[in-house]
Amino acid sequence: MNLILIDPNELASPTSARITDPRRLRHLHEVHRAQEGDRLSVGIRGGKMGKAILSKLDEHQACFALESLDEPAPVALPVHLVLALPRPRMLARTLEHVTALGVKQLTLLNTQRVEKSYWQSPELRDDKIHQHLLLGLEQARDTQLPSIQLAKGFRPFLEDSLPGLLEARQGLLAHPGMPRPCPRGVTQPSLLLVGPEGGFIPWEVEQLLTAGCEGIHLGPRILRVETAVTALLARIF
Amino acid sequence: MNLILIDPNELASPTSARITDPRRLRHLHEVHRAQEGDRLSVGIRGGKMGKAILSKLDEHQACFALESLDEPAPVALPVHLVLALPRPRMLARTLEHVTALGVKQLTLLNTQRVEKSYWQSPELRDDKIHQHLLLGLEQARDTQLPSIQLAKGFRPFLEDSLPGLLEARQGLLAHPGMPRPCPRGVTQPSLLLVGPEGGFIPWEVEQLLTAGCEGIHLGPRILRVETAVTALLARIF
Repeated sequence: MNLILIDPNELASPTSARITDPRRLRHLHEVHRAQEGDRLSVGIRGGKMGKAILSKLDEHQACFALESLDEPAPVALPVHLVLALPRPRMLARTLEHVTALGVKQLTLLNTQRVEKSYWQSPELRDDKIHQHLLLGLEQARDTQLPSIQLAKGFRPFLEDSLPGLLEARQGLLAHPGMPRPCPRGVTQPSLLLVGPEGGFIPWEVEQLLTAGCEGIHLGPRILRVETAVTALLARIF
Repeated sequence: MNLILIDPNELASPTSARITDPRRLRHLHEVHRAQEGDRLSVGIRGGKMGKAILSKLDEHQACFALESLDEPAPVALPVHLVLALPRPRMLARTLEHVTALGVKQLTLLNTQRVEKSYWQSPELRDDKIHQHLLLGLEQARDTQLPSIQLAKGFRPFLEDSLPGLLEARQGLLAHPGMPRPCPRGVTQPSLLLVGPEGGFIPWEVEQLLTAGCEGIHLGPRILRVETAVTALLARIF
């Protein structure tokens, strides 16, 4: 927790806030070992960041006196990430990784090799997803929550969503064996598609290429999805 | 397990191999759902890769008839990675990630902010480390084990090891707030140093810079060590 992320409804006034949830209180007590009077990094969810004085801390609450919060959130990556739904434990970590890296648009997609049971996982509940996004923001010192869409059908995604997504973005399909090496230092808005463990099936690859995506590869090494996503985002942007 | 990695002492002859360990047998049965007669990707640890016919599979053993193994292992990254020893669970994952990404030289370093207890973790036992390296190789389809050194003292590393390491390598110190953005597409041999959660302390940074390392940064976002290491390797090389 490199940033204490304050929800707008935790503001008691424009210059004071009070948090009461056990997770952040425990972190303040046990990890920060915070004391009343400490000056800590804070941010308002959806807003600016800066410093605040911890004016009160006990087992039930932490109160902050906010200084002028004038630091903008770090710049987002110019990407809409489309990720085949990973297995639940990997989903949790991947949500934190990609949020910390600055992804703001994420679609979780069904593909042939996504196990159907993954769509029933409790990790897909709104509150669980929200929690992982918050952890990613707190880690990276960011205040802007990503927006998550669930695309439970490949064909509806392909036919109804993809054309619109590609109107203002270049489509990059990351898949082993594609002809073009992964580009570097891209600044233009991009749609990055990453398959499941085991990859997209050939029909899916063909459909995505026909729709206008360009196939790119990271080399001969096959990476786990969470490693591949981080590596792709770090290399492309 | 995208590659069945055969230890040289599992070779019964130059063209046949037999494996008996429960982990790989379980994987063949449950994940690959392999059948006798299947043609699978194999590699000899430290050697070449290719295909083999599964000639026998039961609950105690798997026997392979090797075809000519003539595919070389994928190219390694030109890096010696020096990583402040992470917490045990993150160490396990990080060993797999960096092995899969192609790191062949890794030094685990003590720094001021590494908790002393981490050095007592069972994850640092030779057999545990070896297991994680194998998982990384099997994931990425590689046969060349990384070499791991433990540097339990920062000052001995600085004084006795670092000068030799920097003789034929550029030193890159990844640390938030350093002046130079992380370089891209580096091909020259490099020594990459990554600090612990909480970072190197200022004295350590100063010593590493004085020793000839160049400070680089990944931007304003603070990443978890496992995310940062993957992002750095993917961006630099």
